[in-house]
Amino acid sequence: MLAARSEVQVDTSEVRVTEWRLAPGSATGHHTHGMDYVIVPVTAGEMTIVAPNGERSRAQLAAGKSYFRKAGVEHDVLNETSTEIVFLEIELKP
Amino acid sequence: MLAARSEVQVDTSEVRVTEWRLAPGSATGHHTHGMDYVIVPVTAGEMTIVAPNGERSRAQLAAGKSYFRKAGVEHDVLNETSTEIVFLEIELKP
Repeated sequence: MLAARSEVQVDTSEVRVTEWRLAPGSATGHHTHGMDYVIVPVTAGEMTIVAPNGERSRAQLAAGKSYFRKAGVEHDVLNETSTEIVFLEIELKP
Repeated sequence: MLAARSEVQVDTSEVRVTEWRLAPGSATGHHTHGMDYVIVPVTAGEMTIVAPNGERSRAQLAAGKSYFRKAGVEHDVLNETSTEIVFLEIELKP
């Protein structure tokens, strides 16, 4: 599986903003969120989420429609579609 | 001048995310940022910024290219172009 590409846009003592680009067939790799975070989709798209127990679910993204999650979320994120998915992850430093 | 439209997408104890839509000829109105914040442009565009002393400047927005500002920024934000500008404001609660 291809690796998603990431680029840090902002990194201050308050916040880190990372742009994620998931080409078709790519994945972030399994990870645990150490900080509370907001996701802002830049593109529309559909992500496949794989939970630690292997359970798979789909999440629809709409450009500019954000959501918030608390630290501790653990998952892999895959793009099984034929179009690139781009989103920003805004991590709130404690 | 038209008023920009805003809609709160997320409001938790940690963060508030507000979507701003500036139609051509609209403005946010003069305001002071009470919290540190990140801006994520959803559209490309050009904003006109009016400082408290009346000085005007232009800022280019690129979709998905974020920036961070500390609390205390004071300005009016205008759309003097012919296309709608959409961005998210992510305010970091202290």
